[in-house]
Amino acid sequence: FKILVLPGDGIGPEIIKEAVKVLKALGEKKGITFNFQYGLIGGAAIDETGVPLPEETVELGKQSDAILLGAVGGPKWDNLPPEIRPELGGLLKIRKVFDLYANLRPVMFFPELKNASPLKPEIIEGVDILMVRELTGGLYFGEKKRFTTEQGEQAVIDTLIYTEKEVERVVRLGFELAQKRRGKLTLVDKANVLESSRFWREITEEIKKEYPDVELSYMYVDNCAMQLIRNPRQFDVIVTENMFGDILTDEGAVLAGSIGLLPSASLNGKFGLYEPIHGSAPDIAGQNKANPLATILSAGMMLRYSLDCPEEALLIEKAVKAVLQKGYRTGDILEPGTALVTCEEMGDL
Amino acid sequence: FKILVLPGDGIGPEIIKEAVKVLKALGEKKGITFNFQYGLIGGAAIDETGVPLPEETVELGKQSDAILLGAVGGPKWDNLPPEIRPELGGLLKIRKVFDLYANLRPVMFFPELKNASPLKPEIIEGVDILMVRELTGGLYFGEKKRFTTEQGEQAVIDTLIYTEKEVERVVRLGFELAQKRRGKLTLVDKANVLESSRFWREITEEIKKEYPDVELSYMYVDNCAMQLIRNPRQFDVIVTENMFGDILTDEGAVLAGSIGLLPSASLNGKFGLYEPIHGSAPDIAGQNKANPLATILSAGMMLRYSLDCPEEALLIEKAVKAVLQKGYRTGDILEPGTALVTCEEMGDL
Ligand SMILES: CC(C)[C@H](C(=O)O)[C@@H](O)C(=O)O
Ligand SMILES: CC(C)[C@H](C(=O)O)[C@@H](O)C(=O)O
Repeated sequence: FKILVLPGDGIGPEIIKEAVKVLKALGEKKGITFNFQYGLIGGAAIDETGVPLPEETVELGKQSDAILLGAVGGPKWDNLPPEIRPELGGLLKIRKVFDLYANLRPVMFFPELKNASPLKPEIIEGVDILMVRELTGGLYFGEKKRFTTEQGEQAVIDTLIYTEKEVERVVRLGFELAQKRRGKLTLVDKANVLESSRFWREITEEIKKEYPDVELSYMYVDNCAMQLIRNPRQFDVIVTENMFGDILTDEGAVLAGSIGLLPSASLNGKFGLYEPIHGSAPDIAGQNKANPLATILSAGMMLRYSLDCPEEALLIEKAVKAVLQKGYRTGDILEPGTALVTCEEMGDL
Repeated sequence: FKILVLPGDGIGPEIIKEAVKVLKALGEKKGITFNFQYGLIGGAAIDETGVPLPEETVELGKQSDAILLGAVGGPKWDNLPPEIRPELGGLLKIRKVFDLYANLRPVMFFPELKNASPLKPEIIEGVDILMVRELTGGLYFGEKKRFTTEQGEQAVIDTLIYTEKEVERVVRLGFELAQKRRGKLTLVDKANVLESSRFWREITEEIKKEYPDVELSYMYVDNCAMQLIRNPRQFDVIVTENMFGDILTDEGAVLAGSIGLLPSASLNGKFGLYEPIHGSAPDIAGQNKANPLATILSAGMMLRYSLDCPEEALLIEKAVKAVLQKGYRTGDILEPGTALVTCEEMGDL
């Protein structure tokens, strides 16, 4: 398999190194050849080439089966104009260039980390949600402009726009993922206020006929923000538009108290970009302290969704579980009775 | 004081009755005369007049010092077209008609209810946030339309629109409220993606010069959705646009585990509409089971923000605390060792 590796900024290079280490070890054991190519993105790319997403990175991506990304951004580039900052010019642009329309974020409860959750154990135990966020449409990519009103006032517009196909493909993926899990899909929207939400519902009503075995329900986004905290076990697969997904996936991520463990996939069919959901953590960069598990688990998702190696994905997941059970922890999830290890040691383990 | 009382639907009439009872008792004790006028809104108004917000209700509101509302909506009216449903045609319309641009929602920790919170006690103890949500602009009220793309695809648009004045007045209120509290204001937005957020920041940067004693910070909405769960004590006053506010205030509301206790104010200067943040709970309507405390505390907010009676507001808040301390509970907050009372009994207490 050809994998484009994009270490990025901050702790990106350290955590990526451990994920590549794990993939190599797995490859040797299972007779899989990974061909890793390295590219630039984010601040690292700005420093070297002047832009956060060089054309060369895009070209390398096109020749690859999947992309594995560390993290982008940091204070050094925060005062650049937004369009050429690592986040917008790098992350958002690579999503758009590769049309990575579906962002998958599992919210998993790790029994070994139950003390790390801000929620009471009886609420968080057994939670297993797959959130699917639409990633290339909506307010993020609609027209934005300043204008002057008839009364001479300054004003601003952002546009939330969706086409039929954009909605259809991500909702369909939601149904398919639900079919492979516990068969429950929740479409989260604000259909009592937004026309775009009503559009999503109409399309979803059509698609649902093809998936009679999936139990579909609708939930308003404000209610979902509550339900995720009150009773997260009620959810199986959640599908939602870009902006709502941005907020809800981050809310979901802290429920389990283990943000350093949560992976993500951004897919366009089988092609995908895989990255931990946490950021570049500039404050601990270069100190061999970061938690590489989310990146390692992202490599696991890559095996499952892009490389058709579900068994190998499982091996990675089991390895992570085993290491946690044995009590090894990086600093972010350390607690009394567990043993502190470095980023590198965690990768070795 | 002239108060327009809008009981609305579901448990609305029951909880309103108790709040009015408390105001009357307070009036007698303190020599304040409340002149209560009753009006129709929501499903109750649809049933009687065919529309969710009759002109007469608006007229009565104009003659009043403040409006006290129960709750609107219920399954009976859920299949009407959205514009004439209780929520949109009633609640959203009354906000717009009276230009109630600032929705204030305190998120308070009640020590007596700490077991009711889904969060661990060490996270939730001492939380005291005032959320200020812009209520008459943004995606809720911008142009919405369906159209066909050049490729012949169906598509949809919602528009997020803000003018200078709309932003200024609510941000200014945020600063003023922060000044009267712990002096911290957080503007929540998505300035790394939305032009409207950058517009909000520019205006906020101007206003902040007038409030040198307030410590202003910015936070992205996705991060705020996390921080509210991880470390809610960091917040004092939060100000944000309509849609983000809808999501974050509901998230905030469940943190304390006492949604039946949380009041709200929707203000335009001194004039305001006061209502509990919970809904009309049709499943328990008419059974004398509902928790009237959020409505009673909303009457308290009314005394503070519209009627210039801060001491009387405090009396109501103290009474609620005292009753909880004595162990009286409605069903929603009942726990071992406390005594179950009806809605009416709670009002009497
Ligand atoms: C950095 C930012 C533009 C991005 C987003 O909002 O999509 C991030 O928050 C994410 O969720 O991946
Ligand atoms: C009923 C609905 C339109 C309303 C809103 O979204 O504003 C409600 O959720 C609220 O927060 O008051």
